[in-house]
Amino acid sequence: MIPGFADPAPLIAAAEVAAAAAAAVLRARFRTPLRAERKADESPVTEADRAAEQAMRHVLREAFPNHGVLGEEGGASELGQDFLWVLDPIDGTRAFLTGRPLFTSLIALLHEGRPVLGLIDQPVTRERWIGLAGQKTLFEGPLGGRPGTRRCTTLARAELSCTSPELLGDALPRFQRLAAGCERTSWGGDAYQYGLLSLGLIDIVAERGLKMWDWAALVPVIEGAGGRVTDWQGRRLQIGDEADVIAVGDAALLGPALTRLAV
Amino acid sequence: MIPGFADPAPLIAAAEVAAAAAAAVLRARFRTPLRAERKADESPVTEADRAAEQAMRHVLREAFPNHGVLGEEGGASELGQDFLWVLDPIDGTRAFLTGRPLFTSLIALLHEGRPVLGLIDQPVTRERWIGLAGQKTLFEGPLGGRPGTRRCTTLARAELSCTSPELLGDALPRFQRLAAGCERTSWGGDAYQYGLLSLGLIDIVAERGLKMWDWAALVPVIEGAGGRVTDWQGRRLQIGDEADVIAVGDAALLGPALTRLAV
Repeated sequence: MIPGFADPAPLIAAAEVAAAAAAAVLRARFRTPLRAERKADESPVTEADRAAEQAMRHVLREAFPNHGVLGEEGGASELGQDFLWVLDPIDGTRAFLTGRPLFTSLIALLHEGRPVLGLIDQPVTRERWIGLAGQKTLFEGPLGGRPGTRRCTTLARAELSCTSPELLGDALPRFQRLAAGCERTSWGGDAYQYGLLSLGLIDIVAERGLKMWDWAALVPVIEGAGGRVTDWQGRRLQIGDEADVIAVGDAALLGPALTRLAV
Repeated sequence: MIPGFADPAPLIAAAEVAAAAAAAVLRARFRTPLRAERKADESPVTEADRAAEQAMRHVLREAFPNHGVLGEEGGASELGQDFLWVLDPIDGTRAFLTGRPLFTSLIALLHEGRPVLGLIDQPVTRERWIGLAGQKTLFEGPLGGRPGTRRCTTLARAELSCTSPELLGDALPRFQRLAAGCERTSWGGDAYQYGLLSLGLIDIVAERGLKMWDWAALVPVIEGAGGRVTDWQGRRLQIGDEADVIAVGDAALLGPALTRLAV
């Protein structure tokens, strides 16, 4: 239930139109020659990021002129509002640049700082996850899979995933301690990994230093699929700071995983 | 030109039918609950690997009863023949198990120990690369991209890729020395990465300990797209042993990359 919206359908519809607008931009540019620049934090950005965010902003400002919008590339507007849309036009710019169909567009709606709607869209495989606070996660796509995390009560049977070792920085040994206790580890995928966790295909994702636009959309998707997502101390993720994020499909894994990630 | 086959069309046709047979098996099992066992080398294997290899073997034995067939899962037969088909039903079993659409089926044809035909097939995105010794690589798929490596003459502008740090073992520092000289590094993708290199989206892939069935199909695809593939000493890959593999889209990168990978 989203305050002020007895029926969340208009919010979902606007998010879907925004995702479709970004997808059109990204499909036209995927696997074409692109020039990437480096941002202040050394992460890559392209004209495609900016154009896709602009397309999403346009849709959301038209639909909800009184809501705030915060995007990875375009900054913030109307931050004082109760409702804030948080956008990441390309989560996984490295995947986008290298032609891997695992990058996504992320759209979150925050109410008083809490994510109440999250959308993960993969434009070229045409997969889409939609999470709504307190409701079951929806998933559509031609590659198969059903929403819902899987049961996995033992770390030793858990499938662990992470985008890249570089992302872990000086926490790499802590991640490796977790990995040593898990069944398998695989790499790559950014937000798409959390989508796979929400389909019951991955049991744990652990990553460091995610920005708000990286994780806000994931929360309703993961929770609505039966999973849990916290920081590396087991606390609810807070808007504002960068976050060290852990998501588990089965809540039973959270304690043992946090123990291995502890300093 | 393949000795004894003035027209390679029957070989390509058989490889495509074999790939389609494997793809039907894999699409039916992708993102369904699967039990993975560990092989002697700790790598995972599933019933899907075995069923897909069986489907490919059946097609190739019917089409060319006098050719040998060697598969990752099913062992070898008729190894004494001039022609040997080398099969990997699922390259990237971890990607397959976690629902990432980056695993591939690999089919190579060796003539007197040299790869003369290579096919890389992604069953769920329906992408396929075909390489033939001395001919331009073919690529088909709905996600976009054109065959042909890209020009990149400076390591500092190169896009580097690797499946996982675990794969590098004690050569991780050597890989990191290479990565430090490149523009960017990304992770994940197994044989699919070499396909992306052959589309001009990645400049260097460096990996260790690849088996014959992991790399044989890649050679005609990469070379037919304008790239180079060698071991970490710059030597042609040899059938038999495990290989440390480096592929570059632009031959100008090979020397500088090998220097950084040297002990």
